[in-house]
Amino acid sequence: MSAAPDFEPAFAGYALRARSSFARQGAMALIGAEMVDVRPGYCAIALTPRPEVSQQHGYVHAGIVGAIVDSAGGYAGYTLFPEDSSVLTVEFKLNLLAPAAGERLLAEGHVVKAGRTLAVTRGEVHAETAGRRTLVALMQQTLMVMRGKPDA
Amino acid sequence: MSAAPDFEPAFAGYALRARSSFARQGAMALIGAEMVDVRPGYCAIALTPRPEVSQQHGYVHAGIVGAIVDSAGGYAGYTLFPEDSSVLTVEFKLNLLAPAAGERLLAEGHVVKAGRTLAVTRGEVHAETAGRRTLVALMQQTLMVMRGKPDA
Amino acid sequence: MSAAPDFEPAFAGYALRARSSFARQGAMALIGAEMVDVRPGYCAIALTPRPEVSQQHGYVHAGIVGAIVDSAGGYAGYTLFPEDSSVLTVEFKLNLLAPAAGERLLAEGHVVKAGRTLAVTRGEVHAETAGRRTLVALMQQTLMVMRGKPDA
Amino acid sequence: MSAAPDFEPAFAGYALRARSSFARQGAMALIGAEMVDVRPGYCAIALTPRPEVSQQHGYVHAGIVGAIVDSAGGYAGYTLFPEDSSVLTVEFKLNLLAPAAGERLLAEGHVVKAGRTLAVTRGEVHAETAGRRTLVALMQQTLMVMRGKPDA
Repeated sequence: MSAAPDFEPAFAGYALRARSSFARQGAMALIGAEMVDVRPGYCAIALTPRPEVSQQHGYVHAGIVGAIVDSAGGYAGYTLFPEDSSVLTVEFKLNLLAPAAGERLLAEGHVVKAGRTLAVTRGEVHAETAGRRTLVALMQQTLMVMRGKPDA
Repeated sequence: MSAAPDFEPAFAGYALRARSSFARQGAMALIGAEMVDVRPGYCAIALTPRPEVSQQHGYVHAGIVGAIVDSAGGYAGYTLFPEDSSVLTVEFKLNLLAPAAGERLLAEGHVVKAGRTLAVTRGEVHAETAGRRTLVALMQQTLMVMRGKPDA
Repeated sequence: MSAAPDFEPAFAGYALRARSSFARQGAMALIGAEMVDVRPGYCAIALTPRPEVSQQHGYVHAGIVGAIVDSAGGYAGYTLFPEDSSVLTVEFKLNLLAPAAGERLLAEGHVVKAGRTLAVTRGEVHAETAGRRTLVALMQQTLMVMRGKPDA
Repeated sequence: MSAAPDFEPAFAGYALRARSSFARQGAMALIGAEMVDVRPGYCAIALTPRPEVSQQHGYVHAGIVGAIVDSAGGYAGYTLFPEDSSVLTVEFKLNLLAPAAGERLLAEGHVVKAGRTLAVTRGEVHAETAGRRTLVALMQQTLMVMRGKPDA
């Protein structure tokens, strides 16, 4: 693919709006996820692996990996939506590539196409350990722009 | 599609094995999910919606919906795997159809095809309220049979 | 999942409209696909395996299997759309389960949820040989209702 | 995501093997697709839009778009497989982003992770017109390495 497109937010307050919305996601607080970056068309969410978010072998549960990268993609899209709107996940598809373990997981979402009604994102989750990054999951996602339905 | 296939478990202790494995998933305990049924080629997992598992509008987070139906599909597949094996999610795809809210969410996974190396499942999540069921999510999933790698 | 829902078409001429639209799909004629059934929320498309639609081992190409089940799902959805509309595939996901070979492939699409803007379908492709059916592919698809944009 | 990984082919004859395999895909010849590039972990397939590969509005059929990018992803993966092997698509997921029309469609597949048994790729399809490229589709795919089963 060509270089990432240069996105123009439709609402100047996009970053605060995304952070406030994320702060209202009880699920992200429960699992211990943090929004660590949000820019036009991009969002990053971090999670520290620990037994409370594990599957049966001690790695982070595929569903939890999916939850952080779904949120990362959703808020990446939301940065480009109009003021009077909210965001909805229509669907996402997740490939798990390696055991999700390490000091930190970083889920990143990137907008690929932002349309009037739908937006499409891609996401990646890397595990970070001792300065080394391993790709653990890959996502492709469809979002819906909910016009006239503010988030809060 | 034709009627659900009639599956024969390869390991008589499949149900206890699935329940023990599920009990080791810290993430399922954290979100409050319970395995409520497990039969050859089938598994059901229940979750009570509450603020701790919500997204920004108060519904259950798409990622949490994905987590319970990923586990339901994974354990549905695991019921058919040989004694000396464990189960891994290769990938899943989730469509969100309606707000996940109500008294209880029930995620069901069904095996569609169980091969030597890979298995394919479908899953559905219904929201239950006052005896009424609403379909809230639809999943399609690929699992890997990890031979020679017992679960515990 | 519960029994298939009972769908009410929004436009009485839905069957003829679907058949006329299908007849304008040059790609379906090229590969030799035929629409063999269309009912509210359902559509079936048949294809005879032959070298012209094969992959490198002589089976029907995964992309061709995808093409007939994408069309089957799309027209299943279209049966429920209003008079003044057309249908667009937003995305689909296809699992290949067995070699696509035999006397005939039958791709079936079923609507799972028909909303105002989006519809979700599932699809299956069976290979038929000597009266025996083998499931060869599984699909999950999102469609868009294009209101005010008639098909022809 | 970080820069594309640098892949080492396991079999020196990977390019000729991919081209010969592609030449045996009757479906690619039927739709008029051409393999225009193949390198370690990468493959590009081109198609000229024309009425024979269209859907009902004259654009290239989503299923045909899927077929070329499935092949591009599959042969991207195959460049990294051992000598004595062939390649199988386990599943793919395709998002359609814009009408597939123009002078030429170019489908590109990139390997993201090549494992012992499975490989994961991403794909993009661009429409090219008068030197301008438009992204029309996005794919994520899982492949299987068929060891001990040569392609021809």
